[in-house]
Amino acid sequence: MATQTLDVVGIGNAIVDILVPSDDQFLSKHDLRKGTMTLVNEARAEALYRATGSGVEMSGGSCGNTMAGIASFGGKGAYVGKVRNDQLGDVFAHDMRAIGVKFDTAPLTKGPSTARCLILVTPDAQRTMNTYLGACVELGPEDLDPNLIAAAQVTYLEGYLFDPPRAKEAFRRAAKTAHDAGRKVSLSLSDPFCVDRYRDEFRDLVANHIDILFANEAEICSLYQVNDFEQAVNHVRGKTEIAALTRSELGSVIVTRDREHRIPISPPERVIDSTGAGDLYAAGFLYGLTNGKDLASCGKLGSLAAAEVISHYGARPETPLRDLAQRAGLI
Amino acid sequence: MATQTLDVVGIGNAIVDILVPSDDQFLSKHDLRKGTMTLVNEARAEALYRATGSGVEMSGGSCGNTMAGIASFGGKGAYVGKVRNDQLGDVFAHDMRAIGVKFDTAPLTKGPSTARCLILVTPDAQRTMNTYLGACVELGPEDLDPNLIAAAQVTYLEGYLFDPPRAKEAFRRAAKTAHDAGRKVSLSLSDPFCVDRYRDEFRDLVANHIDILFANEAEICSLYQVNDFEQAVNHVRGKTEIAALTRSELGSVIVTRDREHRIPISPPERVIDSTGAGDLYAAGFLYGLTNGKDLASCGKLGSLAAAEVISHYGARPETPLRDLAQRAGLI
Repeated sequence: MATQTLDVVGIGNAIVDILVPSDDQFLSKHDLRKGTMTLVNEARAEALYRATGSGVEMSGGSCGNTMAGIASFGGKGAYVGKVRNDQLGDVFAHDMRAIGVKFDTAPLTKGPSTARCLILVTPDAQRTMNTYLGACVELGPEDLDPNLIAAAQVTYLEGYLFDPPRAKEAFRRAAKTAHDAGRKVSLSLSDPFCVDRYRDEFRDLVANHIDILFANEAEICSLYQVNDFEQAVNHVRGKTEIAALTRSELGSVIVTRDREHRIPISPPERVIDSTGAGDLYAAGFLYGLTNGKDLASCGKLGSLAAAEVISHYGARPETPLRDLAQRAGLI
Repeated sequence: MATQTLDVVGIGNAIVDILVPSDDQFLSKHDLRKGTMTLVNEARAEALYRATGSGVEMSGGSCGNTMAGIASFGGKGAYVGKVRNDQLGDVFAHDMRAIGVKFDTAPLTKGPSTARCLILVTPDAQRTMNTYLGACVELGPEDLDPNLIAAAQVTYLEGYLFDPPRAKEAFRRAAKTAHDAGRKVSLSLSDPFCVDRYRDEFRDLVANHIDILFANEAEICSLYQVNDFEQAVNHVRGKTEIAALTRSELGSVIVTRDREHRIPISPPERVIDSTGAGDLYAAGFLYGLTNGKDLASCGKLGSLAAAEVISHYGARPETPLRDLAQRAGLI
């Protein structure tokens, strides 16, 4: 009731990343496909971890990164995701709150540990992710506070939520609650193999329940099973109010029923680690959208945030995005 | 018996670092003295952590960093230190083994959790450390394998071991075992406040039980309660076989009974975070010493390793030190 109005509430798999430098040889030796996310069980997670070099741990999760980005712009956000009350769960919760994102999901007190994602970063700045979902599988509809959902202009959901079955239920419940409150629902398709796993459900969602869609070129082509980006654009046009499609160095295309905005990239100072580029594009876009910017500006804010996050190791911004956006004259 | 000969066995407090960007205002608000290490209890550790921004977690510990450095040069090392069988303990053990350091100390299965050090990094690249010792307090003489100690050319001990009482016992036992086997014993003084806490014991150790001493200017001046570095040099001369004294941008001075070597710094590409500079100087020096280099070369290897580690965030090398040393013609 007394919940303050929020820009965005994000719901996602709450994951701590373990970043490790790697190389192509390691990927092929361990049958890993570069640039994708693979779900692994605990035994495989441990075997892969044992085989890698020393790492750096930091809070991650696709939607978690997006919410951190929105907060870095000065936006008001909340996050819903499941950790356990263990050391990595404490780290995840601390980092979320430290950056100013409301995070009150009750942690598990027993059962699987906080989710981990082993991210192998190759010298070409690509990342190959291996996720042990751990506590995320216990996220369910009971974790959703309807007042929180209703208070946010946009409810933002990551496609990866379809992997843990009860999280999928929470996903559908959240979308309904948001729409019943007259709010918008946004989805990020997460990765082409995630789209493969849930293509029919995602197509139905996009056509009937999503207002703002985020996808990169591989994901949107996989969704509509086409090889050509422009064909995918034609497919998605009108299916959702806004589709924001990212194309790496080719920039992004924002598609509405009757218009297209082609947005160039913000050239990054350097490219160190592409982890989080899509997550941060969504952050900039949603911050803009919920703060009254036109669609072209939303795209530029997305590009700016993506450029910041790929210029360093890790998937969350190091430089306050609000400062960068002000310097660029975007806010 | 069948233990292979080792260059160095290091004994230290096994700690996972939490690195957080900070500023002078935060330090003074929380009564923290810049550049020092303060021991904190769990409640204070948590209160400080709650007050800080989002962080990055990586394995640390003064001696752990040194051993990682020795391995990065291609040296053969082992580490003794106490973690718990929790998530951060797993991270610490993984990182040690991943870099090629033998690490077999049995983890605690109950009791205090793996030690954490909250490191506040200010824009001047200084670090202010707050250590919750956790499982380290349980390290005791029973954790020392006499065959391991006897197998190493040098047993390297961090001064911080004097903080947990049983670790101090282990320290003394290790020094005796090493000397009984005809091996060398090395000590790093750790920080000026650590020297304050144990000045008499450290003076006695240096005069009677240590062959190779590492200290920075503040530490060696604190040990002999003098204000002038050259006075400290006179005090330490002859008390130990080798004293390697570091002076930040002034380089280092290696003092033996009858000679002094003044070694300039290796100019770093940039200075981001001074965490680990002293630890890595010791790594280069000990790697050189146990691999037949003369003292001036040992000092240069120390400078090279220190320069690498201050050029990035975190206290362990990111670029293989062996490559850097080969490129510099030092090995």
